[in-house]
Amino acid sequence: MNFSLRGIVIIIMNSKKFGFTIEKKVGGGSLARAGIIHTPHGDIRTPAFIVVGTKATVKSLTMEQVKSIGAQIVLSNTYHLYLAPGDELVKRAGGLGKFMNWDGPTFTDSGGFQVFSLGVAYGKGIGKVASEEENQEDTESDHGQLATIDDEGVTFKSHRDGSSHRFTPERSIQIQHNIGADIIVAFDECTSPHAPYDKQKASLDRTHEWAKRSLAEHRSLGGDQALFGVIQGGKHRDLREEAARTIGAMDFDGFGIGGSFSKDDIGTAVRWVNAILPENKPRHLLGIGEPIDFFYGIEAGVDTFDCVSPTRLGRNGSLYTKHGRMNITNAKYIDDHTPVEDDCGCYTCTNHTRAYLAHLFREDEMLGAALGSIHNLYFAVSLVERIRLSLFDGTYEVLKERTLRDFYTK
Amino acid sequence: MNFSLRGIVIIIMNSKKFGFTIEKKVGGGSLARAGIIHTPHGDIRTPAFIVVGTKATVKSLTMEQVKSIGAQIVLSNTYHLYLAPGDELVKRAGGLGKFMNWDGPTFTDSGGFQVFSLGVAYGKGIGKVASEEENQEDTESDHGQLATIDDEGVTFKSHRDGSSHRFTPERSIQIQHNIGADIIVAFDECTSPHAPYDKQKASLDRTHEWAKRSLAEHRSLGGDQALFGVIQGGKHRDLREEAARTIGAMDFDGFGIGGSFSKDDIGTAVRWVNAILPENKPRHLLGIGEPIDFFYGIEAGVDTFDCVSPTRLGRNGSLYTKHGRMNITNAKYIDDHTPVEDDCGCYTCTNHTRAYLAHLFREDEMLGAALGSIHNLYFAVSLVERIRLSLFDGTYEVLKERTLRDFYTK
Repeated sequence: MNFSLRGIVIIIMNSKKFGFTIEKKVGGGSLARAGIIHTPHGDIRTPAFIVVGTKATVKSLTMEQVKSIGAQIVLSNTYHLYLAPGDELVKRAGGLGKFMNWDGPTFTDSGGFQVFSLGVAYGKGIGKVASEEENQEDTESDHGQLATIDDEGVTFKSHRDGSSHRFTPERSIQIQHNIGADIIVAFDECTSPHAPYDKQKASLDRTHEWAKRSLAEHRSLGGDQALFGVIQGGKHRDLREEAARTIGAMDFDGFGIGGSFSKDDIGTAVRWVNAILPENKPRHLLGIGEPIDFFYGIEAGVDTFDCVSPTRLGRNGSLYTKHGRMNITNAKYIDDHTPVEDDCGCYTCTNHTRAYLAHLFREDEMLGAALGSIHNLYFAVSLVERIRLSLFDGTYEVLKERTLRDFYTK
Repeated sequence: MNFSLRGIVIIIMNSKKFGFTIEKKVGGGSLARAGIIHTPHGDIRTPAFIVVGTKATVKSLTMEQVKSIGAQIVLSNTYHLYLAPGDELVKRAGGLGKFMNWDGPTFTDSGGFQVFSLGVAYGKGIGKVASEEENQEDTESDHGQLATIDDEGVTFKSHRDGSSHRFTPERSIQIQHNIGADIIVAFDECTSPHAPYDKQKASLDRTHEWAKRSLAEHRSLGGDQALFGVIQGGKHRDLREEAARTIGAMDFDGFGIGGSFSKDDIGTAVRWVNAILPENKPRHLLGIGEPIDFFYGIEAGVDTFDCVSPTRLGRNGSLYTKHGRMNITNAKYIDDHTPVEDDCGCYTCTNHTRAYLAHLFREDEMLGAALGSIHNLYFAVSLVERIRLSLFDGTYEVLKERTLRDFYTK
């Protein structure tokens, strides 16, 4: 027994390990469920939208502002943090949460997508992949940049300075242990959805080997972090199902569903996967987060989403509303002294008008980026929160019909 | 008697007119005093640092953040707001405070400095002036831009698109009435401190004529705004004293002291002026605000200061500390997991480390600009607030000696 108050607090915190509680299942053909992910830094009520802070900062916002949006968890990027400020520096800072002063749960991806895309396709929704036999072809690509992949790992050049680096599954896990997020992700190979079937199959096999190695490294390093396995397989049902069976059978704490998706894929490819994955572990849809995706993803059994769209669009003055996106720099808003949305509870809408936002964006004032990001993040976080509530009170279908009709009908 | 609650509230608000109460005079050779400026939007405890929000935004910060810094009043720029979004739009928005959602007191300068400097010398601390006979010379200047001045007013080109505009004293006052700040400023001619004596004398005479016309226009327009007269006169004691006598005798609500100053000028030129100006009206030192300036200005009888330095420096990672400015991008801070200042109470220092700030600035992340601005504004606002308190408890000399020694000794 420890009579030191500080000691007791530490013991209590250490006892908060990772877990997942399902509170409600919808059933009737829907894989949707509401739950709670438990992490050492607090709970996440799911379905949930995870806010992206790529370089340990949710661009333009203080963590106080991120909290005020209702965000429960922040996801940062392993590739970017490895390059700057470096995972060992983040470790010395006390880990990702302490470094960026976010006391809630944190998440890092494996860095896989960025390592493969290397800035060439980054942000375009497809991963650029070069296996060894494709080197010649790829050195002649747009940027002359290349990731060289072998069964052991991938050698890549920094998009910052061209310096050479190598990630293996073990190295990615070591880096993610240094960064110290509550949820980390196994290192996977990201394949272009346009690659031939046999390439995708080979890539999937490699990803599954790497999943085993990621898990082994994670176990050997110890600690309270949760490790998610990644499901790939592109648009191919057999590959997706094989991935779900293979990764689902391993001792992961949860799963990330990767790859590029069209709107239709979310309703099919994700469902193939989640119908197979063990029900008692959380499922994260990597890098997807338009309003329609939330509904299709949640119906297909997704618990969490992350996406840069709300902040990226918000910084550019493209604001989510019930009736679709509003480009605040449009001339018609210059003299419009009403909020972006009358009934929106975000800081931006409760304090500022369209005219003021139009002025800020037209003048390229930094505050515009912050207010736009706050509004869009609030929109995304609140929409997923409303979907969560609708799973409990049976209003999901009504909410979906109304939301999608209003958002996508011009 | 009005039984409508809304009516009563309006009556109460309208009754809060402009005024100045002196709470404490130091005496003994010092012109320093502590007081309270009363405005329709609340009181300002003086001496005070006024936060600058040039284009109706304190760059990178929400008004919630500005308030949390301890800011009492925000100053915006008439020239910039006239050009964008336009003073009439600001009027339709309900005035400057409503437009930018700042419910405290507001201040606009006359636009004179910007009109004359036109971007050519803007930000360099000197005003570029061209009288009609100097046109030829000035059209050949760096930017080929020109303000054409006559006794009626000044014709100038927008730094944005080269379009031609004309300000007269009447027009400046009309614009400032549209913008609707609590404190506005008479339109003055800004002369280069390097101009010959006779030019400066002629410019001063014109400024005094314009002061009368500004006052007349202000009275004819009515309303609750306070109008400050501007004292010019460069480094010349006779001109400064003549300006103080002339402007001081007019029915202004307070005074702005303009012109370029070296550190020494503040201790002399400002004192010449304030020894003559009526004691019962507030005095604002326009655009000056380094730590040493606060002490020299307050001793010389200044009540308020405004300056872009804290925010401009803060956005660039140059942070005020007790021991001078710290360039947070310096390599030695990369792995320094302590706050910028241990005993600073600002949001930045209570939540973030030097290492995190170094990361943000090195990565050119927008949050760095916000956190740097918060820290520097808090530093400036708090320092002037501490000086204010020292005037009451007799610790001024100790505070001055220690602050300047620590700040300027490396």
